[in-house]
Amino acid sequence: MNKPKLTLIKIGGNIVDDDKALQRFLSDFNEISTAKVLVHGGGKIATELSKEMGITPQMIDGRRITDAKTLRVVTMVYAGLINKNIVANLQALGTNAIGLSGADGNIIKSHKRNHPTIDFGFVGDIDVVDGGKIKSLLQAGFTPVFCALTHDNQGSLLNTNADTIASELAIVLSEYYQVEFVYCFEKKGLLTDINDDNSFIPKIKIGEIQTLKDDGTISAGMLPKVDNISNAIQRGVYQVRLCHAEDIRAILTENVSLGTLFTA
Amino acid sequence: MNKPKLTLIKIGGNIVDDDKALQRFLSDFNEISTAKVLVHGGGKIATELSKEMGITPQMIDGRRITDAKTLRVVTMVYAGLINKNIVANLQALGTNAIGLSGADGNIIKSHKRNHPTIDFGFVGDIDVVDGGKIKSLLQAGFTPVFCALTHDNQGSLLNTNADTIASELAIVLSEYYQVEFVYCFEKKGLLTDINDDNSFIPKIKIGEIQTLKDDGTISAGMLPKVDNISNAIQRGVYQVRLCHAEDIRAILTENVSLGTLFTA
Repeated sequence: MNKPKLTLIKIGGNIVDDDKALQRFLSDFNEISTAKVLVHGGGKIATELSKEMGITPQMIDGRRITDAKTLRVVTMVYAGLINKNIVANLQALGTNAIGLSGADGNIIKSHKRNHPTIDFGFVGDIDVVDGGKIKSLLQAGFTPVFCALTHDNQGSLLNTNADTIASELAIVLSEYYQVEFVYCFEKKGLLTDINDDNSFIPKIKIGEIQTLKDDGTISAGMLPKVDNISNAIQRGVYQVRLCHAEDIRAILTENVSLGTLFTA
Repeated sequence: MNKPKLTLIKIGGNIVDDDKALQRFLSDFNEISTAKVLVHGGGKIATELSKEMGITPQMIDGRRITDAKTLRVVTMVYAGLINKNIVANLQALGTNAIGLSGADGNIIKSHKRNHPTIDFGFVGDIDVVDGGKIKSLLQAGFTPVFCALTHDNQGSLLNTNADTIASELAIVLSEYYQVEFVYCFEKKGLLTDINDDNSFIPKIKIGEIQTLKDDGTISAGMLPKVDNISNAIQRGVYQVRLCHAEDIRAILTENVSLGTLFTA
């Protein structure tokens, strides 16, 4: 068990949509000395661009549908605008970033979501991640930067949840690396008091999660995230840190304990 | 001099803008058995999207300027929409494509065009291409697909001529490969009669080009392309084929002589 360390970070809209926060995060990401992978969500830009283009969001049962026009927009915004600007900024800082969708190198193959009553359109659920190809890129000196798009290997790109992409990458890469999966979101961690951002639980074993679900500490809104984290650890990820992106530098380069650390 | 063969193909707007022609081309590209690299131009989609978004093209002295808004649009369209759809379609056919801008892997570094009287905005002139990184991707089994964007390595993406990208890639890759650079455009080759598409010159040595310039066979419109080709061969590219994309299959997989073959 002498695997090299790898840090995999997921950032979301609160960072991607905020130029200053993004620049700060990228500068912190650049400081990380282990092998590293970045996964970024989409943010609000795609929604704003859709509006500018007069595309009305398609909703079914309150769920957003990725129709063909929306897929065009998210492909432009996620894989083009956001991904390539992150790559250019990381390169300027000295990180040898390479921007990827799941179609590139056939790294993430998905299928169109199959739901009994709702046709989500071009939304992908992941079938398989090719960790060997990511490893070959890392070994060639590249730092992969993934956007939230995959493909069906039949010619169609698919809009895919960035949290799920990040956690599936973390799981698959755990075959080759001791993966620390850093899951950034808009809070400082798993909070015992939703109104107090400093009430984050510093450490938790996944065996203790059920108790926190039962007593209501883990709110309904946090359930998908916590289940995602729990799943990642059960499937071999060394540890998961749930935190705010602004605490990344302290956590990863100054060894300060912030956020919630999930372990087996 | 026992270098492996590599085929580098540049396609332009007449293919990128035409779904059927693009599908046919990608299917032909998929059949090529040597190592291969694809460079694609932008086509009309960026112009159409700019119009949809109410962006007025900035022109100075009849030259199009890439202002900040236009850079956003071309980043979305070239690196996102066009590049990722080409990659997804190639993957479906069986080619292990990976889509790249020049920022990815810092493969193509440029500087903002420095012109005495016109500020072209975010337009890049190439400084250096990292052939070693492309080679490492090829050796790892990837087929690189480049869009017409580079970067200044200071955080800015730059809109860059796809013909120039293709020819600079061909030159740099000639250090490692015997490069056949296939330069697709809307004619069948270098024509002796501009009105007769079958009047293409089958073979020409670059030493013979001056005569054709002098006697007017090479028209003003063709001069930049021919100079680009001539430059590539003088700087080590094995041969350049100027042809129509619809003739690629016959030329490369059926060994039919179509288009104009330029050699040293």
